[in-house]
Amino acid sequence: MKRFFPILDWLPAYNRTVLTNDLVAAVIVTIMLIPQSLAYALLAGLPAEVGLYASIAPLVLYAVFGTSRTLAVGPVAVVSLMTAAAVGKIAAGGTPEYLGAAIAMAVASGLMLLAMGLLRLGFIANFLSHPVISGFISASGILIATSQVPSLLGIKVEGHTLPEVLLGLAQNLQDINIFTALIGGFAVAFLWWSRSRLKGTLAKYRVSPGLTSVLVRAAPVAAVALTTLAAWAFGLGDRGVSLVGDVPSGLPTPALPPLDPDLWAAILLPAALISLVGYVETVSVAQTLAAKRRQRIDPDQELVALGMSNLGAGLSGGFPVTGGFARSVVNFDAGAETPAAGAFTAIGMALATLFLTPLLYHLPKATLAATIIVAVLGLVDLPAIKRTFAVNSADAAAMLVTILITLGVGVEQGIASGVGLSILLHLWRTSRPHVAVIGQVPGTEHFRNTLRHNVVTVPEVLSIRVDEALYFPNARWLEDTVMAHVADNRQIKAVVLNCVAVNDVDSSAIESLEAINARLKDAGVRLHLAEVKGPVMDRLQKTHFLDDLTGFVHLTQYDAMQALAPDLTRQTRTLPRINTAKVT
Amino acid sequence: MKRFFPILDWLPAYNRTVLTNDLVAAVIVTIMLIPQSLAYALLAGLPAEVGLYASIAPLVLYAVFGTSRTLAVGPVAVVSLMTAAAVGKIAAGGTPEYLGAAIAMAVASGLMLLAMGLLRLGFIANFLSHPVISGFISASGILIATSQVPSLLGIKVEGHTLPEVLLGLAQNLQDINIFTALIGGFAVAFLWWSRSRLKGTLAKYRVSPGLTSVLVRAAPVAAVALTTLAAWAFGLGDRGVSLVGDVPSGLPTPALPPLDPDLWAAILLPAALISLVGYVETVSVAQTLAAKRRQRIDPDQELVALGMSNLGAGLSGGFPVTGGFARSVVNFDAGAETPAAGAFTAIGMALATLFLTPLLYHLPKATLAATIIVAVLGLVDLPAIKRTFAVNSADAAAMLVTILITLGVGVEQGIASGVGLSILLHLWRTSRPHVAVIGQVPGTEHFRNTLRHNVVTVPEVLSIRVDEALYFPNARWLEDTVMAHVADNRQIKAVVLNCVAVNDVDSSAIESLEAINARLKDAGVRLHLAEVKGPVMDRLQKTHFLDDLTGFVHLTQYDAMQALAPDLTRQTRTLPRINTAKVT
Repeated sequence: MKRFFPILDWLPAYNRTVLTNDLVAAVIVTIMLIPQSLAYALLAGLPAEVGLYASIAPLVLYAVFGTSRTLAVGPVAVVSLMTAAAVGKIAAGGTPEYLGAAIAMAVASGLMLLAMGLLRLGFIANFLSHPVISGFISASGILIATSQVPSLLGIKVEGHTLPEVLLGLAQNLQDINIFTALIGGFAVAFLWWSRSRLKGTLAKYRVSPGLTSVLVRAAPVAAVALTTLAAWAFGLGDRGVSLVGDVPSGLPTPALPPLDPDLWAAILLPAALISLVGYVETVSVAQTLAAKRRQRIDPDQELVALGMSNLGAGLSGGFPVTGGFARSVVNFDAGAETPAAGAFTAIGMALATLFLTPLLYHLPKATLAATIIVAVLGLVDLPAIKRTFAVNSADAAAMLVTILITLGVGVEQGIASGVGLSILLHLWRTSRPHVAVIGQVPGTEHFRNTLRHNVVTVPEVLSIRVDEALYFPNARWLEDTVMAHVADNRQIKAVVLNCVAVNDVDSSAIESLEAINARLKDAGVRLHLAEVKGPVMDRLQKTHFLDDLTGFVHLTQYDAMQALAPDLTRQTRTLPRINTAKVT
Repeated sequence: MKRFFPILDWLPAYNRTVLTNDLVAAVIVTIMLIPQSLAYALLAGLPAEVGLYASIAPLVLYAVFGTSRTLAVGPVAVVSLMTAAAVGKIAAGGTPEYLGAAIAMAVASGLMLLAMGLLRLGFIANFLSHPVISGFISASGILIATSQVPSLLGIKVEGHTLPEVLLGLAQNLQDINIFTALIGGFAVAFLWWSRSRLKGTLAKYRVSPGLTSVLVRAAPVAAVALTTLAAWAFGLGDRGVSLVGDVPSGLPTPALPPLDPDLWAAILLPAALISLVGYVETVSVAQTLAAKRRQRIDPDQELVALGMSNLGAGLSGGFPVTGGFARSVVNFDAGAETPAAGAFTAIGMALATLFLTPLLYHLPKATLAATIIVAVLGLVDLPAIKRTFAVNSADAAAMLVTILITLGVGVEQGIASGVGLSILLHLWRTSRPHVAVIGQVPGTEHFRNTLRHNVVTVPEVLSIRVDEALYFPNARWLEDTVMAHVADNRQIKAVVLNCVAVNDVDSSAIESLEAINARLKDAGVRLHLAEVKGPVMDRLQKTHFLDDLTGFVHLTQYDAMQALAPDLTRQTRTLPRINTAKVT
């Protein structure tokens, strides 16, 4: 029971102290979530209230099913962008079909996550490597920020890729609305200042850290309030400033999503990508925060929790949600101790939906665009390409391709190319593995690469260590490599294939091993194996290979050398030991 | 020069003995190739003479560029089937567009192979694993044999998949032409008998082995001659028996293929698959035969040679060719010593094209169908599934899927599914690697799995060996696994991660290692590494990981244990050594 309802873990021990802490955190997160939920709904091309709806039921459901104590679920920028990109291909913006498709996307994503959780398929998310996710989030940040600039200036621009948006901006710059631009410019400046300077300023006036924290989080709400007031006072709606307008008040009514089979066929793939990206973000955030307090999260149960949250979002008229980084950190810093904080946030959002919506009529959309821009620019981390390149150029290539395709072609294509390229580069690498001719480290029973270490060898025995599982992409390469090493040297009487790094062997590789054995036999050379691991030995024993093997399978490389070159092992025993310096 | 023109290797030393041997082999191969070239052209849905054209220029070009001394290039069954499947989607059978597409396919395949050879991309072919190729060839054999049954019975059947052909056969069985069926039945029986019994019968009459060999190879020509004679004598053409009819005589005229961009876009993917399959078949045959005579082939140069052959086929009105298994073995057995045998075969085929075509008018197509059926049934090896299953169930699954999809959906889909599934299963396996807790084999410096070997450990030190490269699909798994091992045990003071089988490490894995190090530090446990290989160490040194590492990087596991548990290593030194029995 506790596995499927983690709420049972913490609810019985709930007390007044925890309640107070959770309530404080909930107030701060609610203040932050109100403008964000509206802004991300607009980013997804949806009416503002859809953002509010997506911030009620999902939070309650995550509180019941989630294993993270501090994750804040709700609309986030990247998933909103992905929703806009996917739904934009299916229906025209502003139509009921568009809204229906977004709701269906939440339900589909919820069902997929739930199924993955129940089938324990969470490992699929591992194929989104860190560089690909990092590149994707950076590119999304750039894309989102750029896509909000037209709203900030009161321009209409079509297009979902960076070149399209930039071109549209350049072509329509004459349509700029000066009042919108003033509101937008003020909001960006104010939010930027409150983010980077407000804390320092308040510290000068000796404001308490607790109040400072609330005031800093309240800056977006203040921007909303100030610009709404300005728009109302100066009648900016009549001067061409886009306002949020009528937002229906009242709680969302539960409803089924549209059940059109064509629609569901069209959203299947994007829903899967949204699910994966949302899940990876959720698990990363949840694990980071859990580690700080020595808590554990269960990745498979997180799939269930996120699935239920999205199902709840879709069935209550909302759009796809996930665990957001920024709000979760705020929730954590504000002292949230249990998922009840999320449930309290949901109550706050429900109250806002019931009573605050009339106040939103005069809210300029430019203010929300400013909120988004300031929030997402923190996601962009382009120097990460350079850092990654220093460690692993394949990773950096995958990251770069993800960024370029996401910006230039589209979000789904971007993430798919990144994953595809990561896999191809891995396959390419394993198809030409690293190989070392090894020799004995004097004074030890240890054998290392002759090129990197000061080791001893004998000319009659060639010891080769292959640093890769032997499987079809490298099976033929293995034949060529071993035979090439032997062909150059007539002195060799025995080849020892050190299998310590051979983690698996498949049928193609066994065929190659048989061919190597036969060809070496023809050349008068015996083939020995050493340090074959259990799982590989199990496979070899099921074939005729071991019966035909001209040499032996030795437990260790040292055993093999004792049998094949006893003089060598006897000599090096007495040699002074070198090259054992530890690397820090 | 010699690398690109292997002919320079053998031509200067050419002498009369070699000439005689090559000539004998060429005569036998020509006798075999005449009916096969006609039959495979019909199998590809092309006029009979296209098969003859594909058996002249390609053979000469291979003699110049090929590195195998005995490979016989020309039309083969599997590639003809693939050509039919691909071209059938582009143009209607029997039209000039169909012929044009087949010719373009040969040229496209030639250009691709040539490019792959010059760019040394031969390793791409390694992704066609042995089980996938074996399954594909078995399925192709079944498909080809079944597809010839209608011709054998004089029925017309549409369709390219096994269910389609079988259904068509069942529905049109009433259209059977009794004369065609008689001719076809006789041809199958005669060919089968000459294949399985003729040799024994001739041996009884003490016919010399040389003559026996010629007579056995000549059986298809005899079947052609006998049934042609019968068709002519009894006027079977007027009784509904399909005849080959007019075959234009004379050598092919060089011509460019159609250059329609739509056509080339459509043939790109099938041409790539045909190239890969043809290349894999060529290299396998060439390597098998070369090994028998201690010769070597150069896989990259084989790409160039096969590319030139296909280019030659296409530019002289032929269709895609490759190195065939059956004819190459005959060529080898007949004593061919140099590729000149192939050039002499080309001369034989040119003579046939000039002078024999009028004789082919009355040749029943059912005879050619019989030739094909008897030839391809030898390719089918279904028990291989069971053999493979015993060794590696992933390989067997890939093989089975290849067979089923090839038979049920199509040849291209079959081979693509097989390759795709092989890769997915590999990725799945590496995403959950084998892990062993290791201990010291008493009396040695060697450490093995505690579950498989009788080893010694200390409770304060946990030594874990991970049997896989650490990269994105298993990075998160690594965190979970290491932490789970430590969480269960409060005694542990140090974790030694034995990296002897860690063949690579990427950015995602380094993030995970950093997380493990930090979390172990919080738990008061130090993380040590041992037996880190050169390439992995290079990568680690480019990050901050080694600076933050709480423990050390030890050259060997034994060093690590000497530092962390000196008592253990001192004790076990004096223990009797156990479990060093060699396998086999």
